[in-house]
Formats: sequence, structure tokens, C-alpha cells
Amino acid sequence: MTAYKSKHGYEGLLVVIEGTDGSGKSTQISKLKRWIEDQSYGAMVSEWKTSKFIADAINDAKERNLLNATTFSLLYAADFADRLEQVIIPALKAGFVVILDRYIYTAYVRDVVRGHDIEWLKNLYNYAPEPDMVFYLDVPVEILLKRIIGTTGLDYWESGRDIGLSSDFYESFRIYQDKCIAEYQKMKQEYNFISIDGTLSEKEIHKKIISHVKDILEV
Amino acid sequence: MTAYKSKHGYEGLLVVIEGTDGSGKSTQISKLKRWIEDQSYGAMVSEWKTSKFIADAINDAKERNLLNATTFSLLYAADFADRLEQVIIPALKAGFVVILDRYIYTAYVRDVVRGHDIEWLKNLYNYAPEPDMVFYLDVPVEILLKRIIGTTGLDYWESGRDIGLSSDFYESFRIYQDKCIAEYQKMKQEYNFISIDGTLSEKEIHKKIISHVKDILEV
Repeated sequence: MTAYKSKHGYEGLLVVIEGTDGSGKSTQISKLKRWIEDQSYGAMVSEWKTSKFIADAINDAKERNLLNATTFSLLYAADFADRLEQVIIPALKAGFVVILDRYIYTAYVRDVVRGHDIEWLKNLYNYAPEPDMVFYLDVPVEILLKRIIGTTGLDYWESGRDIGLSSDFYESFRIYQDKCIAEYQKMKQEYNFISIDGTLSEKEIHKKIISHVKDILEV
Repeated sequence: MTAYKSKHGYEGLLVVIEGTDGSGKSTQISKLKRWIEDQSYGAMVSEWKTSKFIADAINDAKERNLLNATTFSLLYAADFADRLEQVIIPALKAGFVVILDRYIYTAYVRDVVRGHDIEWLKNLYNYAPEPDMVFYLDVPVEILLKRIIGTTGLDYWESGRDIGLSSDFYESFRIYQDKCIAEYQKMKQEYNFISIDGTLSEKEIHKKIISHVKDILEV
């Protein structure tokens, strides 16, 4: 499908969009998917944490607020392993452009902020295929706060309330997202993130994303 | 509770009984528990894979035969992490003798036989407390076969049928258990297993076990 040699050896391509909640990932992902399909390629989206049977266990446990950081981390890892084998790899073999709404970097960020050792995590995910391209939507925490409060409200986990950063929800969100953003910044170079200013207009961000995707897709 | 300095630093003791299905673990565990209580110590038993919410996910997935080896491995690891924090560590802190019906060695054996790298697995469980004593009930595969066929019958997973060793169930069980026993043998020295001849009478095995447990328990 492409002159570009994929990093993972499968026929399709693996494109990751990373960023915190409220960074505009979903909008950009649906725009990118449509654009890829318009170029006559098959495209599919897979989100972090969607395997049915594990998602149930995670949601159940979240509700009861039962999980310690390690259990949580391992459940996400199990979910990913399942989704990788059932969904992502078959799609890559079939030549699809697989757009991933968050990837292992999300796990790294969340777990490192919760005290896990990064080397332990890298080992945990060492079988994950290397993406062909990783976009990072960079949005300052003040803007995230405004967007989130105006839409979905402050989520318990996205505010890091499980790790007791502050009894003030607003403050807890700010501290937690700050820590996450700092971890993303650390990974940028190691994993060749293409960082995009997430405060630009939807159109501008989309234009930037496709200008890069064109490098790996024959259009 | 004891003059012996525990390896994990908690006040209680961690005693593991390992062995394949049909090796007589359950019988010995209940005898040991009773004996420890007779010495006026608190004792509790925890089995591999019993956390409610994860057990459901595992059973559900087993039924549908959906899991690949990595997902399976990570679900067991998540279950263990949950049980460690919710059950095992609190009991150790409270000074109990915690008797574990299988421990991380079971995960190593099952997963290595399914093609996992042992170093990946050691990293996965590197936060597990070191047991104070590990017993291994050694039973040749021919005797296991007779015991299992005479009682529970050949289990799908304990026969390794998921990895397609043979279409003959009896043969599959034999090959799979042979492989597991070989892995246990490899670990014996590294983890100081106390190997006990599982073909002896229940009484004789029990006597041997308590003669060792007396070394770490003030009785």
C-alpha cells in the first residue's frame, strides 16, 4: 500500500495520536480517518481500553475504587494484549491504516505518575509493535481545564484523585495533568513524537497531521 | 511471632506449596493450616486466581477460548497484584502464617511452557515478596494421570490443549505436564524449593513439611 517501509513489518501502518483528555484527540482522529478513506485506503480506529471482557473488569473495579496501581497497570496491559491480537495485528496484516487513540505511552505516563518504574513498564509492553508515526497534541493545562469543565467535567481518574494529590478537585486535576504533561515531554525525543500545538484551530491541526501522514502513505 | 527473620520483612510468614494438579497440594495445605493453628498461630490460605472480579474475566474468557498467551499471563498477574494487596500483605502485617496454594512459580511454569521469556516474567512479578519457605510436591506424570483420571478428569488448561500439543487428550496432558515438571525442576535450585516425594503417604508428607516449618516457627 505504501512505498514506505513500516517499522513493524506488517503491510499496514500504525499511526498513534497521544495527548491528555481534552487535547482534541477524538476530533482529529475522526478527521484523519475520513481523510485516509478519501485517499482510498482502509482505515480503522482503536481506542485504549475497549476489549469488552476486560473493560468490564476495569469498570467494575473502578466503581468500587478497589484497585491498587499495580493491578490497574496490569489490567490495562492485559486489555492491550487482547486488543493487539484480536484487532490491531489482523488489521495491520490486512493492510489497514490503524489509528490508535492513545498507545503504550499513555500507560507509561499514567503509571509513572502513580509511582511505577519506567523500566518495569517498558518490559511489560516490549512486544508492542513500533508505530510508524506518533502525534502528540500539546495543550497547556490551563486550556485543558477550561475545555474539560465546559464539557465532560472533571473525571475521577483523569484528575488523579485516586492518588490523593489534593482534596480540591480542580487543584487535583491541575497537579495531575501537569505531571502527565511533564512525562509526555520527557518521552518526546526518545519516541520521536511529532508535537503539534493543540491550541491551533481544528483545521490547522488536521492540515499539519496530514502533511506528515503523506510522508508514509502513497497519495 | 518467631525468632526467625522473615525474608520479606513483614511480621508473618509466607509458606508456599507448589506442584502440578493432582500432586496433593490441597490435602497438605489443609493439614498444615490445622497444625499451625494447633500451635496457636493464626494461619490463612490463599489460592492462585481467586480475586473475584478478575476471576470472572478469566473464566469468561476461558469459556470463549479467546485469550492469547500474553493476555492470559497479564490477567493472572493482575489477579495476583490485587490479591497481594488486598489479602496477603494485610495478613502478613497482622502476623499470620500465610499458606499459598501456588505462587509466582506457577505463573513462570505455565507461561514459559507457552513460549514466554522467563526474564519478562521475572520482571512482571518483581514486586512479589520472597517466600520464607517453598515446598514442591514431586509426583511423576504417570501417577498424576492416574490420580486425575480417577477424580476430576482431564482439564482443558491443565492438559495444555490451548497450545495444541496433541489431539489426543490423554497424550496432551502427559506432554504438557512433562513440560511443566521439567520447568519446576529447573527452578528448584534457584528458588531453594524443598522438594518432597509426593508419592509418599499423606501422613509422611505432612510430617516432612512440618519438620521444616518448625525451623521458621517458634513451637
